Amino acid sequence: MKRTNYAGRTNESQIGEEVVLKGWVAKRRNLGGLIFIDLRDREGIVQLVFDEKQDPAAFKVANECRSEYILEVRGLVRERAEINPDLPTGKIEVEVKEANILAKSQTPPFEVKDNVDASEDLRLQYRYIDLRRPEMMKNMKLRSKVASIIHNYYDNNDFMDVETPDLTRSTPEGARDFLVPSRLYPGHFYALPQSPQLFKQLLMAAGVDRYYQMARCFRDEDLRGDRQPEFTQVDTEMSFATAEDIQDMTEGLIKRVMKEALNVDVKTPFPRMEWQEAMDRYGSDKPDTRFGMLITDLSDIVKDSSFKVFSGTVADGKFVRAICVPGGADHYSRKDITKKEDYIKRYGAKGLAWVKVTADGYNGPIAKFINDLAAPINERLGAKEGDLILFVADSFHVVADSLGYLREKIAHEMDMIKPGQWNYLWVVNWPMFEYDEGFGKWIAAHHPFTMLNEEDLHYLEDGEDPHKAHAQSYDIILNGNEIGGGSIRIHDPKIQEKVFKALGYTKEEARARFNFLIKGLENGMPPEGGLAFGFDRWVMLLAGADNIRDVIPFPKNSKGIEPMTAAPGTVDQEQLDELHIDVKDDSENN
Amino acid sequence: MKRTNYAGRTNESQIGEEVVLKGWVAKRRNLGGLIFIDLRDREGIVQLVFDEKQDPAAFKVANECRSEYILEVRGLVRERAEINPDLPTGKIEVEVKEANILAKSQTPPFEVKDNVDASEDLRLQYRYIDLRRPEMMKNMKLRSKVASIIHNYYDNNDFMDVETPDLTRSTPEGARDFLVPSRLYPGHFYALPQSPQLFKQLLMAAGVDRYYQMARCFRDEDLRGDRQPEFTQVDTEMSFATAEDIQDMTEGLIKRVMKEALNVDVKTPFPRMEWQEAMDRYGSDKPDTRFGMLITDLSDIVKDSSFKVFSGTVADGKFVRAICVPGGADHYSRKDITKKEDYIKRYGAKGLAWVKVTADGYNGPIAKFINDLAAPINERLGAKEGDLILFVADSFHVVADSLGYLREKIAHEMDMIKPGQWNYLWVVNWPMFEYDEGFGKWIAAHHPFTMLNEEDLHYLEDGEDPHKAHAQSYDIILNGNEIGGGSIRIHDPKIQEKVFKALGYTKEEARARFNFLIKGLENGMPPEGGLAFGFDRWVMLLAGADNIRDVIPFPKNSKGIEPMTAAPGTVDQEQLDELHIDVKDDSENN
Repeated sequence: MKRTNYAGRTNESQIGEEVVLKGWVAKRRNLGGLIFIDLRDREGIVQLVFDEKQDPAAFKVANECRSEYILEVRGLVRERAEINPDLPTGKIEVEVKEANILAKSQTPPFEVKDNVDASEDLRLQYRYIDLRRPEMMKNMKLRSKVASIIHNYYDNNDFMDVETPDLTRSTPEGARDFLVPSRLYPGHFYALPQSPQLFKQLLMAAGVDRYYQMARCFRDEDLRGDRQPEFTQVDTEMSFATAEDIQDMTEGLIKRVMKEALNVDVKTPFPRMEWQEAMDRYGSDKPDTRFGMLITDLSDIVKDSSFKVFSGTVADGKFVRAICVPGGADHYSRKDITKKEDYIKRYGAKGLAWVKVTADGYNGPIAKFINDLAAPINERLGAKEGDLILFVADSFHVVADSLGYLREKIAHEMDMIKPGQWNYLWVVNWPMFEYDEGFGKWIAAHHPFTMLNEEDLHYLEDGEDPHKAHAQSYDIILNGNEIGGGSIRIHDPKIQEKVFKALGYTKEEARARFNFLIKGLENGMPPEGGLAFGFDRWVMLLAGADNIRDVIPFPKNSKGIEPMTAAPGTVDQEQLDELHIDVKDDSENN
Repeated sequence: MKRTNYAGRTNESQIGEEVVLKGWVAKRRNLGGLIFIDLRDREGIVQLVFDEKQDPAAFKVANECRSEYILEVRGLVRERAEINPDLPTGKIEVEVKEANILAKSQTPPFEVKDNVDASEDLRLQYRYIDLRRPEMMKNMKLRSKVASIIHNYYDNNDFMDVETPDLTRSTPEGARDFLVPSRLYPGHFYALPQSPQLFKQLLMAAGVDRYYQMARCFRDEDLRGDRQPEFTQVDTEMSFATAEDIQDMTEGLIKRVMKEALNVDVKTPFPRMEWQEAMDRYGSDKPDTRFGMLITDLSDIVKDSSFKVFSGTVADGKFVRAICVPGGADHYSRKDITKKEDYIKRYGAKGLAWVKVTADGYNGPIAKFINDLAAPINERLGAKEGDLILFVADSFHVVADSLGYLREKIAHEMDMIKPGQWNYLWVVNWPMFEYDEGFGKWIAAHHPFTMLNEEDLHYLEDGEDPHKAHAQSYDIILNGNEIGGGSIRIHDPKIQEKVFKALGYTKEEARARFNFLIKGLENGMPPEGGLAFGFDRWVMLLAGADNIRDVIPFPKNSKGIEPMTAAPGTVDQEQLDELHIDVKDDSENN
């Protein structure tokens, strides 16, 4: 029997027609003489009816069926006596004339339904059953659809789809490279790419002009919520393009994806927000603009306050900033606020000052110190009776991190985010360098190949402070999540040399690390730039999923294990011998 | 200046228009007061004219230019005094009004032109220069174009683009797996996939129904001519499909690729040739049908011959077969033929018997023994005066391999292959198993998940010989090259168990190796099958290239090294410590 269409696509226009359907038994009810089966395929569910009197052979087959058996049926589409409004096929059913069991199934380890209560590891171990759930199938279809739009969009805009190697070379930048021992060259290793960054720049040197790739990338990082050791990047690069050109091109893609995959119209151009403003007002380089409650600077108002914590902070050249939580006075108890104070200490905050706004002025532990400034503070914050004001007094980064965290947290707790918003925006004009406290040195805020703003080039000269420079880089943000980022790259080898110097490399170190890129720059590199999207995360947001693993067909779990195949696994000593490596007995250290 | 279009796309319709172009200086001629520059971008070349009198500033810039400098120009398109018929833009030139050097270049290590005489390693080391050559750029564009058609085709045929993991588990089948040591789990390794075979089968169990992926695959094999350790596979799988369904779907793709990428019409359906016929008549499981010279069996004619080599071979149940080389008598000397005889000894042939056909009967060392059979032999072979007949008498495989090799070799030497042919065909009905002389055991001819022909299922029963079974598998051949292959898969766990047994696995071994697949079969696996294309090789043939590295942007050389980044490389001991491995000092053994 040749299938006529997907079960889930059966519809009213086919009433009276004969159809052949194939799918999984999702549900089965035996009403004595009549059996109803919900037949499921990737497009949905349709109800089958087996009538013992009319079609005894088919009925017998239906009677043998159990959950998740695979069935093929030939039957007639007919109107349903009782319409099921929850089902797209709810107006019809199929009267089965002939049926065959194509495959049997053991009792599945968990039910194939949304909101299943199986543990994630069990779901991942039986991923092929988990993916049958309508929600998961919807995610996979969305992912495929978005990939299709991406290919189509770039293919039609003169981008060339170019593949770059997965077996490449580890750079000393690449702590966290996955390594692959070479069989032919003892003691030598390939590395899996953390991104195709240098390859795509060299493709611009090759004259490819416009490049894109759905690139698999690998990073052996410590695992956190939504990180995966392998992930997919929509990688693009354009020659002779300005940052604006690249942003426009990207917006065109997003607009199409939103329309074609979700039927949502988004307005372009997206807002461009300066990095400085994002940090000042949202306390984040990935600002969520779906709600207000902006961070407001009060340093000038409190600089002479008798509250020494505030005035002292300002005197030290630091900042006193606040957010005003509308209606927060009743919502949060003193105890709740103390918990939040404990939390923000991880950002380096020494404390969380707060007042509740009442008809009679401020209320709370510091009220008596700043009641005299209530009028200008309230005015600037737009605070009114019943609001809660949270202050942090500290350095720029501590204030931003602390209030940025509180702003987001409280918005979620108080349900301030109206659903259905798709706030895309660009964060632009990033600092070129940032100081890494951990390493105790300056590092590249994006990567060492990022071009400075033209007007900041003088900072690279002797006697100036290079760390004041800003970069021609940009991140694309969706609802407070960074989904991509990029920059114009350095194409002049002399500028690249100065940037390497600002990062603390000697000439020799730079050559040792990036020889092939430097040679590329010396052999005719056009001005160029690009952008990379985190495909998995973007699809997660588009799907409305809150776990990145729900949009990856076979993800690693939070421990880096893929439970279905039980990877990683042990291997034969013979294999290791061929690769000239030994497993070290360092068990004491682990 | 904003580019108006690619240099190579400038055309007559733009005469009189102002254009802005950006590209590389391909050639420069200074005629004193006039400079001509060929400006190259990925779309081609256009001639720029700089006139010292009219535009002295632009002329000065042109005067500074050297090969491979990057230039932006603003100018007017005008008719060319002397048309260059070899150039698509040969009727026009651009009178430059304004010019800037965007990047300088060192003297390139080799000239940017086709048929460059640089060594391949130098070309690969400076790949970004090598890829500027028109031929290489054409290959990259073709590759991108074909990828685009593939995405479009499968996306529009209800296939879902699903990504499978690159960090997966090594199976004991997987000698030649690339391994990736785990940092989190000492002594454990991920393996890079040799193909997504089991994942795609399990996606069918998940109900994906139609799957495709442009999948990166990895195989740590000994390197040969056109093998790369990483390669790209167009991977597909379909549920509820017959072998014919999958072949039809594939033909639809090929037809579109041939039309849209090469403007060639190919006729579908492609011929289906039985494996047995391919081996009997072409001596190959990837027959080249662009020329005749088929292998012909003469066993019945020579079985009573006085030439004991022939009659004895037939008496032993083996074969005497021949090819007739039209006009071969004059083309090949006795010495030439002896060389060929030496060559086919590597296939196990004990000798190469031959005769030249003259007006007076056969001529050559064995002529006197078989002149009596010349009439029926000539008749069957269609041999005539001036032809050369080559005989091999041996077992089925030795005869096929030897005559198959000679057939191909001679066709190339004698220029028998008319260019411009695109002979696609299917080789079907393969043996299920083949005996591996090296391992001394039966192995799967395709892979252990291939379904048998229904009528051969009985061979799996006790007391029968499973190795007689044929499989529902098929290879797709283009001009004598295998470009893809596939099969219907086993979806019944009982049949899979019997096949594992025929391959010599105990139940426990099979479980240990393929546990997750077996579980998948037990949990509702639909009847299904699929096909995988070798993308690199197909593009190579479409491009008319004879080296697979010429269609891979950054390939490994024939020693497994990628000369640009110098991968694989050494890594810090610290990185190895983190991965719990040591490099073994086995230098004596290497």
